[in-house]
Amino acid sequence: MLLNAFHMNCVSHIQHGLWVRDDTRQLEYTQLEPWVELAQILEKGCFDALFLADVIGLYDTYRGGPETSILEGMQVPVNDPALLIPAMAHVTEHLGFAFTSSVLQTHPFTFARQISTLDHLTRGRVAWNVVTSYLSNAAASLGLGGLPSHDERYERADEYLDVTYKLWEGSWEDDAVLRDTQRRMYADPAKVHPIHHAGKHYEVVGPHLCEPSPQRTPLLFQAGSSTRGRQFAAKHAECVFIVTSRSSLSGSASIIQDIRTQAVRQGRRPEDVRFFQGLTPVVGGTEAEAKAKEAAFIEQANMEGSLAHMSGSIGVDLGTINLDQPLATFDFQSVRGSVKGLIESSPDKSATFRDLIRSRMLRQFLTGTPEQIADELQAWFEAGVDGFNLVYTVTPGTFVDFIDGVVPVLQARGLVQRAYAPGPLRQKLFGEARLPKRHPAAAYRRG
Amino acid sequence: MLLNAFHMNCVSHIQHGLWVRDDTRQLEYTQLEPWVELAQILEKGCFDALFLADVIGLYDTYRGGPETSILEGMQVPVNDPALLIPAMAHVTEHLGFAFTSSVLQTHPFTFARQISTLDHLTRGRVAWNVVTSYLSNAAASLGLGGLPSHDERYERADEYLDVTYKLWEGSWEDDAVLRDTQRRMYADPAKVHPIHHAGKHYEVVGPHLCEPSPQRTPLLFQAGSSTRGRQFAAKHAECVFIVTSRSSLSGSASIIQDIRTQAVRQGRRPEDVRFFQGLTPVVGGTEAEAKAKEAAFIEQANMEGSLAHMSGSIGVDLGTINLDQPLATFDFQSVRGSVKGLIESSPDKSATFRDLIRSRMLRQFLTGTPEQIADELQAWFEAGVDGFNLVYTVTPGTFVDFIDGVVPVLQARGLVQRAYAPGPLRQKLFGEARLPKRHPAAAYRRG
Repeated sequence: MLLNAFHMNCVSHIQHGLWVRDDTRQLEYTQLEPWVELAQILEKGCFDALFLADVIGLYDTYRGGPETSILEGMQVPVNDPALLIPAMAHVTEHLGFAFTSSVLQTHPFTFARQISTLDHLTRGRVAWNVVTSYLSNAAASLGLGGLPSHDERYERADEYLDVTYKLWEGSWEDDAVLRDTQRRMYADPAKVHPIHHAGKHYEVVGPHLCEPSPQRTPLLFQAGSSTRGRQFAAKHAECVFIVTSRSSLSGSASIIQDIRTQAVRQGRRPEDVRFFQGLTPVVGGTEAEAKAKEAAFIEQANMEGSLAHMSGSIGVDLGTINLDQPLATFDFQSVRGSVKGLIESSPDKSATFRDLIRSRMLRQFLTGTPEQIADELQAWFEAGVDGFNLVYTVTPGTFVDFIDGVVPVLQARGLVQRAYAPGPLRQKLFGEARLPKRHPAAAYRRG
Repeated sequence: MLLNAFHMNCVSHIQHGLWVRDDTRQLEYTQLEPWVELAQILEKGCFDALFLADVIGLYDTYRGGPETSILEGMQVPVNDPALLIPAMAHVTEHLGFAFTSSVLQTHPFTFARQISTLDHLTRGRVAWNVVTSYLSNAAASLGLGGLPSHDERYERADEYLDVTYKLWEGSWEDDAVLRDTQRRMYADPAKVHPIHHAGKHYEVVGPHLCEPSPQRTPLLFQAGSSTRGRQFAAKHAECVFIVTSRSSLSGSASIIQDIRTQAVRQGRRPEDVRFFQGLTPVVGGTEAEAKAKEAAFIEQANMEGSLAHMSGSIGVDLGTINLDQPLATFDFQSVRGSVKGLIESSPDKSATFRDLIRSRMLRQFLTGTPEQIADELQAWFEAGVDGFNLVYTVTPGTFVDFIDGVVPVLQARGLVQRAYAPGPLRQKLFGEARLPKRHPAAAYRRG
């Protein structure tokens, strides 16, 4: 069972409204210290990685503008996640660092160098969460006019990955770097190649600016669960982040099955793709204590922040909806498809729309004693989920509680590691530092 | 007198061929450790900043290709400089970090966030060296077809700076961030503004993704000495890096005078721009010891690397020139203007072209006892140079020798600081953390 801490270089990531508490360091996100401390805590707890989410625009759908997001610190302001990694890498030896970067924000030639630099500096502990952006404000700030359509963004992402694969895998041969002080040859020019990529979106001559890093291509995460997103994951991803309802082990199993089947059709193996479920653990010494903690979080949580978040995610202004209207009375012809989907997903049609939103805020909570939480994680694991992206309510408290309470139980059951395996992140997770030959990136290798 | 260490995230930066020595850590450039150690050394020595150069393409003019550059590790491979800063910032408190980023490599919206993030993480210790790139390989790898013309690149840089100024200075008002846990308001939406930039090269709606950092706009370095480059410096730069011959104090004084005059014409003050000369100190306990060290460096230095470097810089393949031809016998009609300029710059016309190249390799050397070096630095300083970008021969040895030997002499003379001034980098250098009102960036401030 794999464990990631899920975080973001901003004030409020998933559980909104809790930044006001005294026992969280969210207000310090602009500084190095809380990140360095977090990395040390996670490594002590034998976590596999810190997973850093990101957005490159504001959620401005709710009530027709970004006001609620700004007021709530809801994923805005948001600093660059990649720049946290070097400092955290300096104080750790094994913890992995997955960060999110959209294919819209940086030219692939520039991005490929950032990744290679990080892979060197971390000695192979970097992972990239490939995203295509869904916030139209991001496109407006990057000179793209409107946001390209969903499928166009994935098409662009496919080409973006091709460019980076060529740079990472195909430009410098394995034995290109000689470091030969006797013959005074740093590298062999015959083994460093331009890539001459000429595609629809990008023209990149190369060669790559960086010598081969431990993993070359970073460990690849992806999170899309749309049809096109699953196709993309099946082709490229090594780790897939899924968020399904806690009550729906079978929902996760079905997504996992679908993506693995598609991966196999592309020549990959089922075990080449690992799946991570997002959950928010609330640990208590007793069940009552845990429930009381959860109740306090819910009491302090901010529904406005969640509505702004959800509105941006589904692209519908939930501010236009009467929160007190019972779900059963909605006229499906008057609401957008994604709202209809939300309503249909609710098992209780006598509930109001407000109840629905609250239940979605809660569905990620996993509350109980260490044993109870371990039981539930084990149930997910046995249903086919490989690991978890753990969401914080307070930071680093959520992770400290989990590491002190739940990790020892999971270790005693032999479900999580007691010590790190050697080598780069991919080697720790999959046994090899480099991508397997059956991954599409490997087709670009030379020599 | 200001002191920067001049460095680059690559094997061989300026003095080529010396990476083969046992007493330099150049071969470790891909790792964090030598950088973290360097930062600690520099801060102990009260240096103002570490200045990180960069290129985003290969020098491929010499002999018609990049082979020599690759063989010599001559600025290729080259990793991203910005990613070194967070780890170095974590182990220091005062040292500044200037890094180079070309306006061609990253969209200004994305870049503005990187800078703001770094300015937060370093608590205001970041500087940006604005460059426009002169290597055609960079343009070919960024999908720009050919390299835009020199003046077009500066025009683009002007707009790039406008975009970033709007984001850094004009998007979030000073009191936009409330962090009000009682009223549960992180920031005031009325004080966060889109920038609606629509120019020739960029369209950026905004708002900026980051809350105000200590300096907002980072301390601005620039290095161009062309007519257009000087105009650009006079408008934007706070620190200008110049490289003139050691024998030419008056040459530096004339550039300084020219840029300051132009700056004043734009409404700035002469003291708003500081000038840094590049020099390679070689310190010995005695003059003879220093000369012997210099002789060893020259003996080991690699002329091929320097020819590849110079060919790329001037855009002429020096591999087509007979190195043993006396300068006096060159037919000026058959050589390119920049080569003609090189030859004309040599006082000794009986020398060969090889002698000329060697003398240019040597001209940055400043060799002697600590007292002798301090004397010469003082002479530069009295001629109007504000500080120095010190080039290494071996790293960190060059800086260790300088700090152990020369810094105490300069401190005894009251020429350099014995301790750091408080606050962000700009405050340390100019007395204020923010740009003065007379800088063009200030025009975009609101509220």
